[in-house]
Amino acid sequence: MQRGYSDGNTQLKTATFFTPVQDSILQVETRMRDVTNGHHPDLRAALEHLLSSGGKRVRPAVALLTGAMLGADREKIISLAASIELLHTATLVHDDLIDGALLRRGIPTLNAQWTPGATVLTGDFIFACAAKLAAKTESVELMYRFAETLTIIVNGEITQMFQRKDEGFYDEYLERIYAKTGSLFVLATTAPAILSPIRKSTYDAANRFGYGIGMAFQIIDDVLDFTGEQSSVGKPVANDLRQGLITLPTIYYRETNPDDPNLDQILCGKNIKNEELNQLVSAIQESGAVDRATSQAQEFVDQALDALNELPLTPERQALESLSMYIIDRHL
Amino acid sequence: MQRGYSDGNTQLKTATFFTPVQDSILQVETRMRDVTNGHHPDLRAALEHLLSSGGKRVRPAVALLTGAMLGADREKIISLAASIELLHTATLVHDDLIDGALLRRGIPTLNAQWTPGATVLTGDFIFACAAKLAAKTESVELMYRFAETLTIIVNGEITQMFQRKDEGFYDEYLERIYAKTGSLFVLATTAPAILSPIRKSTYDAANRFGYGIGMAFQIIDDVLDFTGEQSSVGKPVANDLRQGLITLPTIYYRETNPDDPNLDQILCGKNIKNEELNQLVSAIQESGAVDRATSQAQEFVDQALDALNELPLTPERQALESLSMYIIDRHL
Repeated sequence: MQRGYSDGNTQLKTATFFTPVQDSILQVETRMRDVTNGHHPDLRAALEHLLSSGGKRVRPAVALLTGAMLGADREKIISLAASIELLHTATLVHDDLIDGALLRRGIPTLNAQWTPGATVLTGDFIFACAAKLAAKTESVELMYRFAETLTIIVNGEITQMFQRKDEGFYDEYLERIYAKTGSLFVLATTAPAILSPIRKSTYDAANRFGYGIGMAFQIIDDVLDFTGEQSSVGKPVANDLRQGLITLPTIYYRETNPDDPNLDQILCGKNIKNEELNQLVSAIQESGAVDRATSQAQEFVDQALDALNELPLTPERQALESLSMYIIDRHL
Repeated sequence: MQRGYSDGNTQLKTATFFTPVQDSILQVETRMRDVTNGHHPDLRAALEHLLSSGGKRVRPAVALLTGAMLGADREKIISLAASIELLHTATLVHDDLIDGALLRRGIPTLNAQWTPGATVLTGDFIFACAAKLAAKTESVELMYRFAETLTIIVNGEITQMFQRKDEGFYDEYLERIYAKTGSLFVLATTAPAILSPIRKSTYDAANRFGYGIGMAFQIIDDVLDFTGEQSSVGKPVANDLRQGLITLPTIYYRETNPDDPNLDQILCGKNIKNEELNQLVSAIQESGAVDRATSQAQEFVDQALDALNELPLTPERQALESLSMYIIDRHL
């Protein structure tokens, strides 16, 4: 996949889809930070560090825009959006600890600075705060879905941890990225539908919309890992593969190159030399597998846009359209 | 504190207070185990291992008895009781990981057998399952309180982690054991009140009852750490003090022995020799501080019993009375 790197363009697109919910997103920021009020000052500092590390707040934007499009109560949607981003943040805190990652988005992770114990507890604390915010929606069903989403995310990680590598093909990949990313996007679109007065006629489409953009989002993440654009935030190219994690570009590459000996070694869980790994990465990059993965992401976005078309035509729906396009075009 | 060790007697008391809720407690066991249905088999195995390690289910018993006494919906109370025990279990999973504990109740901890990563995720998974079960009560307020209790527990642990040791005196100790243990007992008595048709006239007494037994429960835990009765489950005598944790017997000892040089060393965070530590433990054991701590626990139980007297006189109330007495008399 060759795309020109135009920061200005991406910035513009990001700004465009945030426009209808600009004020709300500021309130989401405040609400996320306020959860540490009355608690230990180091928890406040840790959360501030995590939240200031430049997440794009795509999930809150999806929740806010969907909520406004479906006429849900704005106050509740703000709490929901904050709750979803905190849930996401808490899972990242534990993930980075488990992976021993020292940087995220180019800045030090919590576990790079704190003890493992303090990092585990901070993640737990943020989970609990996320659940408290979810309760502000006053919907038991939504809170149940919130907790269920966390079980899906964690079950996915456990499955990945115990899975043999040679199981990592397309269907398992889809299951894995649904657990990792799709499920939270689905929550970000179905939870507003649950809170909407027109729930009955919108829930199903909201569900398909969230699924499509969530799956596309993760596939593009996996594509960017290969195109090297994440190296600007301190990650080596093909970081996932280097950790033994098989993503869509590698799965597609294997379909056309079933006998690549370097890939076989990785799939068998053997250590391979750095030189061989670099060879494999180049082969994948040049094979067209990355383009094919991008096309697959585009297909998910197309399905999402079809679903979106069934929902009320409002400025927020147009913003969600831009957001869907941004998911494919983004660089980080 | 010198008490005769009469296992039979304790067994009898335990059985007595469980009698009115015997069937319900079996349903709690099933409901706790069913949360792993449809998830990774290793999660099921891990939860089975954790649940079979012989917790006494005091918290579920408190919730079930309080719920029955206050006429709350039985089905909801069973979910609540399961949810509270799972929340407790999840915090233990993360605590044991953080402390590097290899045994709990004499059997290997999860972290003794699994990687830190799998242990963190299993704790997260159990938190999420606990929240799902809490949602089965269909009370938003209760779910909010559930999440808030988790923030209190974790905030307490973080505070303890960052606290200077010489701050460990009586008021801080009370705050700490409230966060660690009291808060969950309070949830176990106030959540049933929230679900009760006679909530208005019972909430306050239920709250005081839970607080009293919860605080007593933790003080007796800290007393048992000194009396050596926990050595039967693989813990050395005065394990807390050996880890640098100051509990009530030590706080009382210091009031009458402000200049003990061994204790000063610990309070300053210095390493002391094992021989000096054993000297200090003996001094505390012989000082009357342990008896005084037991009396303090009895005072909390007395306050709890006063509150209990304001609640409906039912067989369950009588069982809660036995349970309160058991908290003081138990050996483990």
